[in-house]
Amino acid sequence: MKILLLDGPNLNLLGTREPEIYGTDTLADCVRDAAAAAASHGYEFEHRQSNHEGEIIEAIHAARGTADAIVINPGAFTHSSYAIADALAAYDGVKVELHLSNPSAREEWRRLSVVAPVVTGTIAGFGRAGYRMAVDAAVGRLA
Amino acid sequence: MKILLLDGPNLNLLGTREPEIYGTDTLADCVRDAAAAAASHGYEFEHRQSNHEGEIIEAIHAARGTADAIVINPGAFTHSSYAIADALAAYDGVKVELHLSNPSAREEWRRLSVVAPVVTGTIAGFGRAGYRMAVDAAVGRLA
Amino acid sequence: MKILLLDGPNLNLLGTREPEIYGTDTLADCVRDAAAAAASHGYEFEHRQSNHEGEIIEAIHAARGTADAIVINPGAFTHSSYAIADALAAYDGVKVELHLSNPSAREEWRRLSVVAPVVTGTIAGFGRAGYRMAVDAAVGRLA
Amino acid sequence: MKILLLDGPNLNLLGTREPEIYGTDTLADCVRDAAAAAASHGYEFEHRQSNHEGEIIEAIHAARGTADAIVINPGAFTHSSYAIADALAAYDGVKVELHLSNPSAREEWRRLSVVAPVVTGTIAGFGRAGYRMAVDAAVGRLA
Amino acid sequence: MKILLLDGPNLNLLGTREPEIYGTDTLADCVRDAAAAAASHGYEFEHRQSNHEGEIIEAIHAARGTADAIVINPGAFTHSSYAIADALAAYDGVKVELHLSNPSAREEWRRLSVVAPVVTGTIAGFGRAGYRMAVDAAVGRLA
Amino acid sequence: MKILLLDGPNLNLLGTREPEIYGTDTLADCVRDAAAAAASHGYEFEHRQSNHEGEIIEAIHAARGTADAIVINPGAFTHSSYAIADALAAYDGVKVELHLSNPSAREEWRRLSVVAPVVTGTIAGFGRAGYRMAVDAAVGRLA
Amino acid sequence: MKILLLDGPNLNLLGTREPEIYGTDTLADCVRDAAAAAASHGYEFEHRQSNHEGEIIEAIHAARGTADAIVINPGAFTHSSYAIADALAAYDGVKVELHLSNPSAREEWRRLSVVAPVVTGTIAGFGRAGYRMAVDAAVGRLA
Amino acid sequence: MKILLLDGPNLNLLGTREPEIYGTDTLADCVRDAAAAAASHGYEFEHRQSNHEGEIIEAIHAARGTADAIVINPGAFTHSSYAIADALAAYDGVKVELHLSNPSAREEWRRLSVVAPVVTGTIAGFGRAGYRMAVDAAVGRLA
Amino acid sequence: MKILLLDGPNLNLLGTREPEIYGTDTLADCVRDAAAAAASHGYEFEHRQSNHEGEIIEAIHAARGTADAIVINPGAFTHSSYAIADALAAYDGVKVELHLSNPSAREEWRRLSVVAPVVTGTIAGFGRAGYRMAVDAAVGRLA
Amino acid sequence: MKILLLDGPNLNLLGTREPEIYGTDTLADCVRDAAAAAASHGYEFEHRQSNHEGEIIEAIHAARGTADAIVINPGAFTHSSYAIADALAAYDGVKVELHLSNPSAREEWRRLSVVAPVVTGTIAGFGRAGYRMAVDAAVGRLA
Amino acid sequence: MKILLLDGPNLNLLGTREPEIYGTDTLADCVRDAAAAAASHGYEFEHRQSNHEGEIIEAIHAARGTADAIVINPGAFTHSSYAIADALAAYDGVKVELHLSNPSAREEWRRLSVVAPVVTGTIAGFGRAGYRMAVDAAVGRLA
Amino acid sequence: MKILLLDGPNLNLLGTREPEIYGTDTLADCVRDAAAAAASHGYEFEHRQSNHEGEIIEAIHAARGTADAIVINPGAFTHSSYAIADALAAYDGVKVELHLSNPSAREEWRRLSVVAPVVTGTIAGFGRAGYRMAVDAAVGRLA
Repeated sequence: MKILLLDGPNLNLLGTREPEIYGTDTLADCVRDAAAAAASHGYEFEHRQSNHEGEIIEAIHAARGTADAIVINPGAFTHSSYAIADALAAYDGVKVELHLSNPSAREEWRRLSVVAPVVTGTIAGFGRAGYRMAVDAAVGRLA
Repeated sequence: MKILLLDGPNLNLLGTREPEIYGTDTLADCVRDAAAAAASHGYEFEHRQSNHEGEIIEAIHAARGTADAIVINPGAFTHSSYAIADALAAYDGVKVELHLSNPSAREEWRRLSVVAPVVTGTIAGFGRAGYRMAVDAAVGRLA
Repeated sequence: MKILLLDGPNLNLLGTREPEIYGTDTLADCVRDAAAAAASHGYEFEHRQSNHEGEIIEAIHAARGTADAIVINPGAFTHSSYAIADALAAYDGVKVELHLSNPSAREEWRRLSVVAPVVTGTIAGFGRAGYRMAVDAAVGRLA
Repeated sequence: MKILLLDGPNLNLLGTREPEIYGTDTLADCVRDAAAAAASHGYEFEHRQSNHEGEIIEAIHAARGTADAIVINPGAFTHSSYAIADALAAYDGVKVELHLSNPSAREEWRRLSVVAPVVTGTIAGFGRAGYRMAVDAAVGRLA
Repeated sequence: MKILLLDGPNLNLLGTREPEIYGTDTLADCVRDAAAAAASHGYEFEHRQSNHEGEIIEAIHAARGTADAIVINPGAFTHSSYAIADALAAYDGVKVELHLSNPSAREEWRRLSVVAPVVTGTIAGFGRAGYRMAVDAAVGRLA
Repeated sequence: MKILLLDGPNLNLLGTREPEIYGTDTLADCVRDAAAAAASHGYEFEHRQSNHEGEIIEAIHAARGTADAIVINPGAFTHSSYAIADALAAYDGVKVELHLSNPSAREEWRRLSVVAPVVTGTIAGFGRAGYRMAVDAAVGRLA
Repeated sequence: MKILLLDGPNLNLLGTREPEIYGTDTLADCVRDAAAAAASHGYEFEHRQSNHEGEIIEAIHAARGTADAIVINPGAFTHSSYAIADALAAYDGVKVELHLSNPSAREEWRRLSVVAPVVTGTIAGFGRAGYRMAVDAAVGRLA
Repeated sequence: MKILLLDGPNLNLLGTREPEIYGTDTLADCVRDAAAAAASHGYEFEHRQSNHEGEIIEAIHAARGTADAIVINPGAFTHSSYAIADALAAYDGVKVELHLSNPSAREEWRRLSVVAPVVTGTIAGFGRAGYRMAVDAAVGRLA
Repeated sequence: MKILLLDGPNLNLLGTREPEIYGTDTLADCVRDAAAAAASHGYEFEHRQSNHEGEIIEAIHAARGTADAIVINPGAFTHSSYAIADALAAYDGVKVELHLSNPSAREEWRRLSVVAPVVTGTIAGFGRAGYRMAVDAAVGRLA
Repeated sequence: MKILLLDGPNLNLLGTREPEIYGTDTLADCVRDAAAAAASHGYEFEHRQSNHEGEIIEAIHAARGTADAIVINPGAFTHSSYAIADALAAYDGVKVELHLSNPSAREEWRRLSVVAPVVTGTIAGFGRAGYRMAVDAAVGRLA
Repeated sequence: MKILLLDGPNLNLLGTREPEIYGTDTLADCVRDAAAAAASHGYEFEHRQSNHEGEIIEAIHAARGTADAIVINPGAFTHSSYAIADALAAYDGVKVELHLSNPSAREEWRRLSVVAPVVTGTIAGFGRAGYRMAVDAAVGRLA
Repeated sequence: MKILLLDGPNLNLLGTREPEIYGTDTLADCVRDAAAAAASHGYEFEHRQSNHEGEIIEAIHAARGTADAIVINPGAFTHSSYAIADALAAYDGVKVELHLSNPSAREEWRRLSVVAPVVTGTIAGFGRAGYRMAVDAAVGRLA
């Protein structure tokens, strides 16, 4: 039983990029929380961060049959990548869309997610805590 | 220390209304989970469901200075009530927007929330489990 | 066997409000016609007028299991109340949307009804006569 | 005293075309009901079905001075024919727009009628029963 | 040398239809003026009115090689008939679009003409006088 | 002779809600100014604040025949309540729309008022002083 | 077993109309290719060209039960005829939409087809060769 | 009895500016034709060209009570000057909108005229000849 | 201490232009009222009316450091002049936007003001009385 | 002489992904058909599938001067990749856009292709058979 | 050989107007830099600033045949003046559009320039330095 | 002190791709100019061209703390890559957006840049010379 955590473009900068929006926790901090949450439920855990849309698509493909759930923070691909949305649509497990900040409180174009129609659920606005929540939520749906 | 849970129009029908979308858990089930979550964190808990926009606005007003966080499932008011959004904007505590189903996977008009720009964060698509998650998330932000 | 007739905001003014658009018949006249039509088919009849969206929602809730059909003239809520639309969607009986005047012949914003997608059918533009027609139509679908 | 019933494109297929939407009653069934309704009120009755926009326009022209009311189910011309709308605008009698199904519950483009602004009233969603209702409604306005 | 005058749907009603917009001159009056204008320039003249889009298309086809100019009042087809626009685009002679009233002073949808991009020029708003003006204008371009 | 002052949702919070936008004057301060202005002109004065759309509609109904003018600050209902607009349209007296802040200087959705087309005039952006100005303006139109 | 080929408005001009867009092959050339393709598969073949929307609708009706597939080049009706789209929706056989040129490379309004949502598939941009391809494609789906 | 001819911005360049669109006739040529046409009808004639919106507005004001008709080629002000439209609305005489080229055959933004709703009629696409036609048309309406 | 009153295009016609919309009071009447109001508060007063956007911009520039407040009725420039909006944004005093009639009750394009986002407040719909109100309001903000 | 076949994101899943839309044929099946078609015409054949936009762009670059035609199924990049469109625009050979399903019969956003304006032609909706058709079509244009 | 520098509305305020956006350099500073740049290339130099659209149009006209290049900072006219765009289109020399700040980083309406489609190139966001850059760029294109 | 020059998709084709739009200078020519400009200012220089959005994002990340300015020609990513925009927003140095041609003079979709709101400034339309200008501009801002 495995949870795959996927982080999209620019999230490797977390903690140093626009801290007034994204906070000072690093991606490593977030991943550590998510991994701990998975472990606490007895799940294996894998993490990938990529700035390449194609790599994210292929990580989703690879999860078919190997991971029970995907937690994905698609970063700016949230708003434009129909290809990631198609990949998620082809994945049958639980899918949780995750955002650190509340996109609706920012620029107009961040209010619509092309990924949202194909996921199980969405968690947004809880910063680093969202990573642990998303893993818990995924496990809850698998239980 | 108190959490206020607010449920909007038609949520009193939960469990009997369109169960293929909303599931068979009743609102009482959801509220029991939320109350338990609040208690487990040592928080008082209060619940209101109303089909009246004005009552929801006034419950938010009453929470000013009496509750530390609001968890709100605004139902269909999500998409039209600027007055609830204004009330939430005037509330300084933690505000969690909650939806049972994933609005983006349904009709086009459900994709935009007029409430989202003024809340702390959003949780959508996890059904009954979302109620416990939302209380936990609110407490997490208060901690 | 029962028909519920619901009238929305401002319809209590009928006969005195903008008679060049709505005519001089009063709501009492319309309700009397609808009640007579229901009686002629052997149906019980109940009428509610409210300027409160929440009361209309709750009247629809109460009709679940107690009324076989709802005839509703939502007034200006026609164009904005997703909450009434959700309530109607959760009602399994026959649902007839009724308008006194022809909304399409008036302001642009009156051309779209958010309620229309969830009703059985619509009758518009026949003034007072529409009330009797709507009851007849509802009965026809129940027969 | 005469009622003219006009049916637009594809309605000749009624009963065989997409029965899950339009039902299994044929156009002949509908016309028979409408004719009977007209007769019951002492009105003459004429029926035309055409898949040609021009023929429908000319039938409306011919009704000027010869028919007291037109009941028209414009089919798909509802959404595009400004020429039929202009012809109806030039007709001074009672004009009832009729639809078998509820257009608002179907594709987005069926929600707007270019004909609606120039008719007396609209009846939609009552299937075969709508034909009789429309004739009754027209007579009611003429009485 | 020949001028073809084409009139679209509902123009046969001219003089009796909505005289507050279109005036009391009949189409026969207009055609007589246009014919006289053509004769005064030594041009043959032919007139067709049709409520059938297909007949107008075919009249334009027939004008290829037989008429030096087309004056066309497309009526409500102005706003929707890409097929007439395509037919006119395939005609190499002078093409004058003619309207009795000023479409921009009426409904919003009358402000855009799908025919306008393929004609030589447009004359609108001069009532019956426009017919003579349009013939003169066509001749002027041919001179 | 009477002036009715109506305040919509959230205005009861005035002075404590987002003071950087709305200032620190309370609603009581504003109402006292308005009442004094009415008195100075020899008018009776009545005030209602409500967070319920239905109560505002009914207060407008009650003003028919009992108040000579309505001053209304509809709050967030300004942008969505067609029902309040319909109620105001059915009221024949002077109607003044009032806003504390300048809506155009804020979010995009605050730029359009659905109430504006049916009022006599609008006053916006003058804070507490607007209440007195609006009463004076109403009296001016009644004089 | 039969294939019906339908050509819409202005296609009778092929070879002489705007040859820089549509080429110099005539419709007769195209039809000969399509007929030969049908024959090579052992299918009967019928061809209709019409500038009348109504005739195209009726040809589609007539194909119900008599032709196994329709290949249709709707010309400019592609962009406006919901009535042809409804007729095609009511036809259960294979339906191939065909265009000589690539509509997307031309005017903006040619980018959207109202017919496309109800056909089996589309072939566009291959000129005369498209006719043979469309027949082959239809046969392929029937095989 | 007087005709006022007004030419807007850039028309002083006529004959030298983009001759492939506007031709090689100069504004002096056009004005000479218009003046001759006015004289032939026994009308006085005045001409103004200005690149200043304010001067055009004031020329329209000055025409109130002194000129029987205005012929105006507003140039690019056609598409943006609500102030010129308001000035024309306040002028009670005959108003002819004139364009040298056919705006609909050019950029998208040239298809809509803010002036068109307030003029008597429009003539477009006939180049230099339009000036004479416009004067004739104005006189025709005055006769 | 000085108030500058600016009137935009066509306002010089006041009293004679479309009196059913703008009334029969002249601009001189309005200015006299405004001047009296300024005097009553002990303020100097200056008035400019111009049909030239550039002159209005320069009058606003000149007011920097010389006038304490600007009352501006921008006429039709309200809806299009970003340059006037920029000039007002660069002026630090009190700025009152004034309209004689209620723009929202007229054409659709009059509902949005490009000037509104940069002014202190707006007064609309009170005719001649608005001039005095606007001066009083400006003084009130300066006090 | 060579044909290059390019398949975009998620097409490697073909046969296992959403078979109700895409069928059970695998990409290997499709490629085998395309290769056979190329061979039958005496053409070399090369195939690339990639989930990386950049790799598809570079494959198109590499085809300049080495392949006579490109057949491309861009998957979800169809709707968003202006960069692939620019790459195709810079390729002078024959370009065929290919889709397995009929995009117009699915979500709204699938109706517009940013690639379509720069290709020679499009084939959509014929499933696996489309691969052979597209190669044949490309060869047909090269012949 | 000459360079004409044109500055539009409100730029005369440079250095005093909203310095947080536009900086504290004055227009005289900018012009001095531009003049020096022109001189360094051996070009004559002329400067005009105007708040009047008509004067800018006429300065562009005057540049035809007398100046080799125009550098223009159109200020707020950038977003609305089709007349300036037409004047620039009629000028055959090099045309450089210049902005002090980056319009895309400000209000939404500043993102589109109606002038941009007719200029040679654009320089935006470099403050005072842009003036020298624009002259250099113009000279570079003339070399 | 270092300048990083980034070129996006298809720019490797420069000089061979659509030379009527992009000219015959190669990317190597442009880079040589930029390098020389950097050297003349005493700056180090690095160049990357990539057709992969992810590589461009990572090059921007790598520039944090190592390069003082980025000059970026994002090619077609200009119009769609919110991920590159986010990466640039997270970079604190000077950022210059560069385009060879004038995007506004081409297709409609090239008029809006999603990158523009986060850069320091933009240079567009000066071809190869833009590379040198952009480096000079970046250095100017750093000085």
